[in-house]
Amino acid sequence: MAEFEALLTDLYELTMAAGYFTHRIASRATFELFVRSLPPERGFLLACGLESALDYLEKFHFEEEEIAFFRRQPAFRSIPDAFFDYLAKLRFTGDVSAIPEGTVVFAEEPLLQVTAPIAEAQIVETYLLSVLNFETSVATKAARTVRAAAGKDVLEFGTRRAQGPEAGVRAARAAYVGGCAATSNVLAGFLYGVPLAGTAAHSWTQAFASERESFEALLESFPDTAILLIDTYDALTGAAMAASLGRQIRGIRLDSGNLLEQSRRVRQILDRAGLTETKIVASGDLNEHKVQKLAAASAPIDYFGVGTELATSRDVPALNVVYKLVEMEQAGQVKYKAKFSEHKAYAPGRKQIFRFSSGGLYERDLLARVEETYADGTPLLEPVMKNGKRMKPPAPLAEIRAHAQANLARLPAPYQSLESPEAYRVEKSRTLEELASQVREHYVGTGTTRQ
Amino acid sequence: MAEFEALLTDLYELTMAAGYFTHRIASRATFELFVRSLPPERGFLLACGLESALDYLEKFHFEEEEIAFFRRQPAFRSIPDAFFDYLAKLRFTGDVSAIPEGTVVFAEEPLLQVTAPIAEAQIVETYLLSVLNFETSVATKAARTVRAAAGKDVLEFGTRRAQGPEAGVRAARAAYVGGCAATSNVLAGFLYGVPLAGTAAHSWTQAFASERESFEALLESFPDTAILLIDTYDALTGAAMAASLGRQIRGIRLDSGNLLEQSRRVRQILDRAGLTETKIVASGDLNEHKVQKLAAASAPIDYFGVGTELATSRDVPALNVVYKLVEMEQAGQVKYKAKFSEHKAYAPGRKQIFRFSSGGLYERDLLARVEETYADGTPLLEPVMKNGKRMKPPAPLAEIRAHAQANLARLPAPYQSLESPEAYRVEKSRTLEELASQVREHYVGTGTTRQ
Repeated sequence: MAEFEALLTDLYELTMAAGYFTHRIASRATFELFVRSLPPERGFLLACGLESALDYLEKFHFEEEEIAFFRRQPAFRSIPDAFFDYLAKLRFTGDVSAIPEGTVVFAEEPLLQVTAPIAEAQIVETYLLSVLNFETSVATKAARTVRAAAGKDVLEFGTRRAQGPEAGVRAARAAYVGGCAATSNVLAGFLYGVPLAGTAAHSWTQAFASERESFEALLESFPDTAILLIDTYDALTGAAMAASLGRQIRGIRLDSGNLLEQSRRVRQILDRAGLTETKIVASGDLNEHKVQKLAAASAPIDYFGVGTELATSRDVPALNVVYKLVEMEQAGQVKYKAKFSEHKAYAPGRKQIFRFSSGGLYERDLLARVEETYADGTPLLEPVMKNGKRMKPPAPLAEIRAHAQANLARLPAPYQSLESPEAYRVEKSRTLEELASQVREHYVGTGTTRQ
Repeated sequence: MAEFEALLTDLYELTMAAGYFTHRIASRATFELFVRSLPPERGFLLACGLESALDYLEKFHFEEEEIAFFRRQPAFRSIPDAFFDYLAKLRFTGDVSAIPEGTVVFAEEPLLQVTAPIAEAQIVETYLLSVLNFETSVATKAARTVRAAAGKDVLEFGTRRAQGPEAGVRAARAAYVGGCAATSNVLAGFLYGVPLAGTAAHSWTQAFASERESFEALLESFPDTAILLIDTYDALTGAAMAASLGRQIRGIRLDSGNLLEQSRRVRQILDRAGLTETKIVASGDLNEHKVQKLAAASAPIDYFGVGTELATSRDVPALNVVYKLVEMEQAGQVKYKAKFSEHKAYAPGRKQIFRFSSGGLYERDLLARVEETYADGTPLLEPVMKNGKRMKPPAPLAEIRAHAQANLARLPAPYQSLESPEAYRVEKSRTLEELASQVREHYVGTGTTRQ
């Protein structure tokens, strides 16, 4: 657990935990984490962030100085000492079911289902929402961008404009899950084994007396891997300069101007010099729409370097993820919980999602109660943690990425359209609808709500 | 330095460093970090992120296992051992000048000016860009939102949908600098002393047999600070329930529906019960535009809880920050560096920014060479680090926030307009323009560029 990671939570999670503790409410509760609705720009999501979530849950604990800090907060003035002793011993002891990373998911489908003593389940809410929200956003954006590249590789270059460098490393891993070929983020290589890629900056060219000298120096240091950035002064002059060096070059990068026109002219310059194997990397405020246009025009670009747009999921920087109580033991009985407010309704009770395919392609999903079974549907939620311990070691990243590719291959094209994607069918089982009605009637009947 | 923080960089920074090292290029170079242009939605920026940058620079070093990782990378295959020995001893030894956090800034104004042996200045690029980009984005968004609230307090509640929880803590600090009154992020309170605030979640209400019981329990645990979330079932019923408890209540929160109408009706219910001191907190996908409308309509809202939009700077999730080489010692002489590409031109040489005021209000800025002086202009860049050491201890956060408030008070309203703000005047000094022309002529003259 990173230093002070347990403090990455909202104050109210801790005050509620203190309230549960002082009122002796220690019942097991189940919360489900899901995306309330898909933004219009997204026809699907690619689940990501589970490894971050499990790692956090498994290591979760408070340090002494953290607890001392809580004691000093005015909010905790009336909270008895016993609560702070409880926090000092607190570990996450719950069970978790989840949809594996790299799975295609839709609105209202629980990505994570946490069952634990309510205070534990409550305290971890903020962190779980944040990592699943962000990593899923970026994995999805990557899947869109890779699809747009139509077989060419996409490189993730976004850390410098990510929302902090830590977001950069999360983005790098998620982008790889989503299908990117490599990242520039060194920590993502170190921690997760994401392949690393890089070229050179304009400052490299400028640090030498001439562009030619800078190219020669880079090729000398990195004979097999150097990718020359040719547009510091002028891209075509730079290309001609590279071509004149009389040696093999792994690649060149274009970072400005009209990438379609420039890549064509640069390809010609390189080919005429016999540098037919030299790759062209293009970068510069690219996103899935620009990549698609370049690919559709058969721009001779071998690698698309995508930064800001990918690492921040710029058009959809956050999903409306929520974490909702769906059931809880009370007075020895399971009580089903739900909200019925307009736009915020969500069915009560623990759920399972069944996915139905036809001809190998995903056709529809069914949101059902956890006890239901459908012989021809594939259940998406799997138990991943029991009593606070992972049930198996983390999946290798390459396996997660392959799972994502296989999932995306089975999702029909209309749902993957970059603009105005079709809505995939997600239905509720009759049994789940019945439970929802019962719970609604109970609350309406007892006058707890007027809705 | 957080674990492996030095790896939060792009691969090419390290390969370029290896290239500089093997080519014995150890000259001191100056890079300037600035925002290339303001997005149309922003009339100004509020500088933030300097403390993160200095903290990183001061602690910067590589661990043995990190260096072992570099050695295994294919890119470094031809790099001599001496480079890795150099990395093991590497610390940041440079000088830094910067615009203090909380200062109003504009496009092309260097927020940070780093002078160091070129490899050092290069390796730190990615991290510096990322923290200044993000923290400035959020501080700016906060300043806009706080202005929109017209004297009411804004609370930062965004960690759950921030781009990872670490982005949440950065956002919480930046939002406080920008004028927010408090945050829900506990780590921001612990690390930076940002005041903490929180209410309760719908799950709290649902965990009790009735809404009434849940309210009574919360008030018992937190008699002076409890803020009841009243809209789990129905906001007006919830308000009536709270009002019927016959005791003082610190506040209630509304999180859904028409906040204007609901806040008015809830205020009435509370006032009729004599709860005239009970505060109303409103939340639910708020941003500066919605806050402005509510404030303009005199909605009886005392605190605006703003989450996702603020913590991700949703409409502008990244700025086009860049880090450009502006001068470098070569062969015993200072060489001025610049790029002249269309849309990417930036003047060479180390700069100073002078701000001119009239009647206490900011009127225009002048981008000048570092040696220039203007008696009636206030220089914005200050030396903050010498030989890798801070020149003074970090400024207390309250002081930074007060500096921001004072700065914002001096920026005329048209530049702070939420929609289509006016463009503030930033000019270049004649001396700076002359240097730019000379450098341009030099490059054009020597045929290095055709532009």
